[in-house]
Amino acid sequence: MMDEERVACAYLLKVAEPPAKALVGFAGEVGMVDAAKLVKAGDVPSAVADETSARKHFDGAEQDLAVAAEVGARLVVPGDEQWPAWSLLPLTNAGARGLRWACPPLGLWVRGKGKLADSLQRAVSVVGARSATGYGEHVAAEFGFGLADRGMTVVSGAAYGIDGAAHKGALRAGGCTVAVLACGIDRAYPAGHSLLLDRIAQDGLVITEYPPGTPPGRHRFLVRNRLIAALGAGTVVVEAGQRSGARNTAASAAALGRVLMVVPGPVTSPMSIGCHELLREGLATSVSSVAEVVESVGLFGEDLVTKPEAVARPTDGLDHESLRVHEALEMRAGHSAERIAEVSGVPLQRVRAVLPALELTGLADRCDSGWRRVKA
Amino acid sequence: MMDEERVACAYLLKVAEPPAKALVGFAGEVGMVDAAKLVKAGDVPSAVADETSARKHFDGAEQDLAVAAEVGARLVVPGDEQWPAWSLLPLTNAGARGLRWACPPLGLWVRGKGKLADSLQRAVSVVGARSATGYGEHVAAEFGFGLADRGMTVVSGAAYGIDGAAHKGALRAGGCTVAVLACGIDRAYPAGHSLLLDRIAQDGLVITEYPPGTPPGRHRFLVRNRLIAALGAGTVVVEAGQRSGARNTAASAAALGRVLMVVPGPVTSPMSIGCHELLREGLATSVSSVAEVVESVGLFGEDLVTKPEAVARPTDGLDHESLRVHEALEMRAGHSAERIAEVSGVPLQRVRAVLPALELTGLADRCDSGWRRVKA
Repeated sequence: MMDEERVACAYLLKVAEPPAKALVGFAGEVGMVDAAKLVKAGDVPSAVADETSARKHFDGAEQDLAVAAEVGARLVVPGDEQWPAWSLLPLTNAGARGLRWACPPLGLWVRGKGKLADSLQRAVSVVGARSATGYGEHVAAEFGFGLADRGMTVVSGAAYGIDGAAHKGALRAGGCTVAVLACGIDRAYPAGHSLLLDRIAQDGLVITEYPPGTPPGRHRFLVRNRLIAALGAGTVVVEAGQRSGARNTAASAAALGRVLMVVPGPVTSPMSIGCHELLREGLATSVSSVAEVVESVGLFGEDLVTKPEAVARPTDGLDHESLRVHEALEMRAGHSAERIAEVSGVPLQRVRAVLPALELTGLADRCDSGWRRVKA
Repeated sequence: MMDEERVACAYLLKVAEPPAKALVGFAGEVGMVDAAKLVKAGDVPSAVADETSARKHFDGAEQDLAVAAEVGARLVVPGDEQWPAWSLLPLTNAGARGLRWACPPLGLWVRGKGKLADSLQRAVSVVGARSATGYGEHVAAEFGFGLADRGMTVVSGAAYGIDGAAHKGALRAGGCTVAVLACGIDRAYPAGHSLLLDRIAQDGLVITEYPPGTPPGRHRFLVRNRLIAALGAGTVVVEAGQRSGARNTAASAAALGRVLMVVPGPVTSPMSIGCHELLREGLATSVSSVAEVVESVGLFGEDLVTKPEAVARPTDGLDHESLRVHEALEMRAGHSAERIAEVSGVPLQRVRAVLPALELTGLADRCDSGWRRVKA
């Protein structure tokens, strides 16, 4: 059964092109159902009228809900238990601080069996260039897999290149991934990712604030990017050219106070220019592994990276003087302590103390001709 | 003619294994000639005795000067006009602050026709792994070439891998490069770089604080690295494994207050791990080009990077609303302003203002059926 609030939300999502900051505020004040009635009647403050006057006569809410149901999608509204209020909070806060584009969606069309708010509780956004390199796609897939493998949800935009690789990596790990669209929930864009979107809907979630039938548009990608930036506790830019949508998402993430991370790449690759610029400008943290991503977005004390142990050398831990004495020893022939003092430049009495210590640790021994180095 | 001071310095360089902090201080107080006499007589403070007692009976100063002369090398001492006092100042200062290893050399053996202090006035150190990848060597050669091409001197350590590539790049540009050795000036280490060292001596400078005949030793590389870190206004680490001498040089450069830069690389490459760790730890700046290196070490206002212009789009500069109206236009058929208001969600009166503006900039025009988009 379609409840009144859901119909009202579907109507408003159709009427106002996001981000509809005044309308979101208005609906928050008077409630979704009354907001819809007042918008339809044209009885709204001028800021709300600006966002709604062009389409307020549209009346396709029930049809949109029906079309969505046909593709297995539902409309999640702010009153619902699975409304991701916590994930969207930075948008509300940044909007209140005056950031023009920052406002949460009025509602979200959701396709997939998973629970929306629960899935987004530990989420990382992975974004990047459509024209990614093999390197970038490899890293995106590895990150997608690794994050999902650790129980994190991967959020991305379903585009070719980095987005697709990240989604696929997460699916391969049997984890959850969320695709945020810049078009209607019934549209597959890009068309070549139609099957991928079906798989995401099966094991994860496909979401959008655009009503069914909405075609993707350039400004819609930019508007959609604010959701990707908000929904991950951090955003990882895997590859980004000098001018790319990924940099827009990165800027949004930074503006929302989310952790911004970039993957370094060869400086000879145009697809890493955007990442390196963000690094150089001090806007992003460098991440080279899933462990570092998790550490960067993780809670204090949890998720700290364990650095791989460097290969130990037998001379590790020797002080500077012992190292010099050890260097002065030869493997082929033994020498007197006096000679070793000369070669090393270490005072004789110290050499006499260091040599037995080196012998104890197995780094030196005595032979007929004196002290010599022991092969490690 | 060998002056007394030079002979005294050659003697002290032979007697004390660097870094000989107490001896450098002592020679600064009493003068090089008296310091040599007192060291020989054993009449020195205990800290100086610790550094000199093992070899104070050595008497090879004049022979060292002769051997050096045979390979075309000379000894430059602090009193000389070309002593690089300014470049070495951070070592003195950091030493005074208590940094154990930080002290300038007593003197420097120099092979090559160039002027030492002048060559080091605008210098950048380029260091990295011996077991560099093709990528690393390519970047090191490009950086060496580009820095030399802009009149900067390249400082490095003459090792295989990054060092060699940086030196070669600088030579190819017809510029100046300085190789700092961890062995005697008469030694070619590594042996495979014997010809390279000859070429560096011809067009640049080979320098060392170790007396002729000194073999390279592990601790000598670490001690030598402080000179590389000091002599460049900044140090660029091109590639560094998890455990590498380049990271030691990097740490020294940072400790000396020099600009520390790293070149990012593929996160899949073990040879970039060290670089990315330095980035992640916030110790280094990312540099992707020679222009960025020069900007990082350059003077304020000079040497600023000019970012390559991004490719402009005809819709650049459109505000959010105009962009939405433009997106709502079709190329195939014209539509009424009312229809465009509905599609874009922009209020009708605004659409009526935006459309003529788009027409003026050539992005829209009128046809029989209404407004349509003009192909860029």
